Amino acid sequence: MPTTAACPAFARVPDKHAAAVRRLIDAGAIPLGKTNMDQFATGLVGTRSPYGETKNALRPAWISGGSSSGSAVAVALGHAPFALGTDTAGSGRVPAALNGLVGYKPSVGAWPVRGVVPACASLDCVTAFTHTLEDALLVDSVVRGPDPDDPWSKDVPAPHPALPDSICLPDEPPAFFGPLAKSYESAWHEAVRRLKRLGLPIRRVAFRPFAEAAALLYDGPWVAERWASLGSFVEARPGAAHPVTERILRTGAGARRTADAVFRAMHRLQQLRLETRRLLENAVLVLPTAGGTYARDQVRNDPFETNRNMGRYTNHCNLLDLCAVAAPAGEAQPGFPFGVTFFALSGRESLAVGAAALFLGEQALLDAAAAKAANPAAPDGTLVAVCGLHMRGFPLEAEMRACGAAFVEEADTAPVYRLVKLPTEPPKPGLVKCPQNGASIRVELWRMPLSAFGRFAASVPAPLGIGKLELADGREVPGFICESYAADGAEDITALGSWRRAAGRP
Amino acid sequence: MPTTAACPAFARVPDKHAAAVRRLIDAGAIPLGKTNMDQFATGLVGTRSPYGETKNALRPAWISGGSSSGSAVAVALGHAPFALGTDTAGSGRVPAALNGLVGYKPSVGAWPVRGVVPACASLDCVTAFTHTLEDALLVDSVVRGPDPDDPWSKDVPAPHPALPDSICLPDEPPAFFGPLAKSYESAWHEAVRRLKRLGLPIRRVAFRPFAEAAALLYDGPWVAERWASLGSFVEARPGAAHPVTERILRTGAGARRTADAVFRAMHRLQQLRLETRRLLENAVLVLPTAGGTYARDQVRNDPFETNRNMGRYTNHCNLLDLCAVAAPAGEAQPGFPFGVTFFALSGRESLAVGAAALFLGEQALLDAAAAKAANPAAPDGTLVAVCGLHMRGFPLEAEMRACGAAFVEEADTAPVYRLVKLPTEPPKPGLVKCPQNGASIRVELWRMPLSAFGRFAASVPAPLGIGKLELADGREVPGFICESYAADGAEDITALGSWRRAAGRP
Repeated sequence: MPTTAACPAFARVPDKHAAAVRRLIDAGAIPLGKTNMDQFATGLVGTRSPYGETKNALRPAWISGGSSSGSAVAVALGHAPFALGTDTAGSGRVPAALNGLVGYKPSVGAWPVRGVVPACASLDCVTAFTHTLEDALLVDSVVRGPDPDDPWSKDVPAPHPALPDSICLPDEPPAFFGPLAKSYESAWHEAVRRLKRLGLPIRRVAFRPFAEAAALLYDGPWVAERWASLGSFVEARPGAAHPVTERILRTGAGARRTADAVFRAMHRLQQLRLETRRLLENAVLVLPTAGGTYARDQVRNDPFETNRNMGRYTNHCNLLDLCAVAAPAGEAQPGFPFGVTFFALSGRESLAVGAAALFLGEQALLDAAAAKAANPAAPDGTLVAVCGLHMRGFPLEAEMRACGAAFVEEADTAPVYRLVKLPTEPPKPGLVKCPQNGASIRVELWRMPLSAFGRFAASVPAPLGIGKLELADGREVPGFICESYAADGAEDITALGSWRRAAGRP
Repeated sequence: MPTTAACPAFARVPDKHAAAVRRLIDAGAIPLGKTNMDQFATGLVGTRSPYGETKNALRPAWISGGSSSGSAVAVALGHAPFALGTDTAGSGRVPAALNGLVGYKPSVGAWPVRGVVPACASLDCVTAFTHTLEDALLVDSVVRGPDPDDPWSKDVPAPHPALPDSICLPDEPPAFFGPLAKSYESAWHEAVRRLKRLGLPIRRVAFRPFAEAAALLYDGPWVAERWASLGSFVEARPGAAHPVTERILRTGAGARRTADAVFRAMHRLQQLRLETRRLLENAVLVLPTAGGTYARDQVRNDPFETNRNMGRYTNHCNLLDLCAVAAPAGEAQPGFPFGVTFFALSGRESLAVGAAALFLGEQALLDAAAAKAANPAAPDGTLVAVCGLHMRGFPLEAEMRACGAAFVEEADTAPVYRLVKLPTEPPKPGLVKCPQNGASIRVELWRMPLSAFGRFAASVPAPLGIGKLELADGREVPGFICESYAADGAEDITALGSWRRAAGRP
């Protein structure tokens, strides 16, 4: 199918699918069609297209949001269960908010962009519009992963829903705009009330670094990155570009932006990224996805200022190397969906997804997360049953902590174990399974990151090892076992029921 | 002490140490002094300084190389066991080569640059000059690591000497220059002969992407990054900068470079990085560190062309996100050291160090690497003894491969084990230690990355576990053990000596 980027003169028929599309087709997806967009992905309104303005799926006189306008509207109207968008400055999130959808924007580089017409090549992401977060994660599971032919591609961990330590809200109230500003403000307050009921700690964080990064994108030199990719076409084909788009692109042209200004902005951005990393470590930031909306004729009358407002809470994202989940959050007014976005650091999709799933009440995802937490081979770590010196208060607790392990609970083994005191220095216990002649032994369950568990398991000295322990509740968890040859001559302390009691501790 | 960057008018007394210096002092290093350099780290010759030209440590009429000229000469003359340099385009490597030293340049971001006067902030590295690679690694062990206040800092794995899969040489003969060109060429051929005797496969790789990246650095827009940091000073203090330095810096000034050209160059660079990653995966590239040298009066007569030549084999490095070890490699002529550089991908210091250690014959390092390889808790992976379905040719070999494991050797256990056939479906063996009544069993040793070993160990099903196996040669290695309760009723196949024989395989 032809690629136009909403510019007929730019049309070309590619000889192969974009990498993301290829992966979806290989997984069984059926492409239904291509859709309208803000030309060259330069716009957040959905009206900057010679193919006509995209109408909002619920209120046709109002904007759809853009730039991936048609993608969002097609999903909102039920034409397709999901659609791909792109996102450089909010193109995959604003239309999600205005049409009541989930807009899923992975970390920069996590999904291949090979075959996508670039806007700002160093920032562009492919995204998904869906009705549910679960659907978005299904798309993610197919599209994510390094593409050896895509120079921007990276190996970014897949999301496994996990709850953040806290939810961060901006330290200054968002500024709402447009004819529905008041309703948007009420919807935001309602969303904040919902966020506060999630049971996660709420933190206020400085909005300044995010606002400053946002300003860099369009007021700063990155518009020259668009010109770097598209300028030669615009120059070669006078009149071919949409006049609004061309005017924006030309602000990045040639002598209007100097090279040293790019580097100064990049240096400043690097500092802002550092600040962001500090603010959002293990946390998610929540902002309104859009702070308002406009009727299409309002955008026609003032195409620049309206568009700029639409990006107020999205523009910072890719520059700061964040991932984002735009989630529906009720309505500003009937037929006017409101949305909030969950932002997390690059590679921390798990946190943005976990918090958004909790907010959206997507129980299937939360159940999957809980099941994963209970599954000892979960990607997030493994349970380890310890029965001796690694328990809390004993000398090797520090080793557990150094491995990033956290105490989970005390537990009893099934009544099939014997506990012996090995004649080592210092003495340590050995747990030997004896189904005919065993007892229940009290152990501790810890959760350890798998990244540390390898070194931990490899370092366990004989006669101990890591096997599977059978617990009284039927679970089987990795934990310390002891080879029987060593237990044969050792003191049997099964009757004491635990090493803690054998050590005379409470 | 004042920081001048070799520009008296720029002098300032910082209120704290640079982060790298701070770490060294905290570890007991005693700063002896500061040294001369090419002004603003802009030069590879060592003569661009109002404090005078730095003389080569061995031949005073010849250049020292730069920009960290005084650092290298101080170490070469024995004033200090090591000195710090910086390296954006070769400043930590060229002076190493010209003065017969090791020049150690970690991956960009691996050592903090906080407190360093920037040249190109996005590319700058702190480096070490030493007499031995072992000394460089000692410095590395102190300085490496993320600095939470340094926006360019990253968490880059520490080097553990390891041998690359192959040594890559350029597919076109290096072009040597200057009055000693012929001697340099002979020294290179001799170095290549030495490289070929190391026992590692030699591959020829395209030099074009490296040459193209090198050209981007000084002929392309990155010179504007220097102007971004230093331009305001140069403009404000006419006459303060060295005339040669100022002329170079001004090529990056204002209107002479456009913003879109920066982005075009960055996009091209991203493609070159992709090509480099493909070429150097698990390999190291070796090039002459410098392709020639000059007498100081030759540089004075033609300061630009001579300097440009000095960077021919260094300029590509940081742009392509490579780490590098510049190593002494004999002499071009008596008193004129020759050097080669080992380049590896970002974060693969281990390979550059391993190959350089082999080349330099630094036995202590190689022994440490060998000891680490024998140590099951080595950062590079762990040995795992497998005795059943995970062996070569059996159904779970694929699982080993999927974990990134590689077969190392066959081995025999100490004569203290009994082998049983567990009544599972399919049947699998269990190895139970019975010191009084055992035999030697043949097993396979594999090496598995620790990053995969955690998941692997956590997934081992009962009654098997991962413990320590005692081998006939006295080694103790992690491997499969079996809980004795399950072995009690199982068929004893100890007499067969291995699962392979029990399965009727050769």
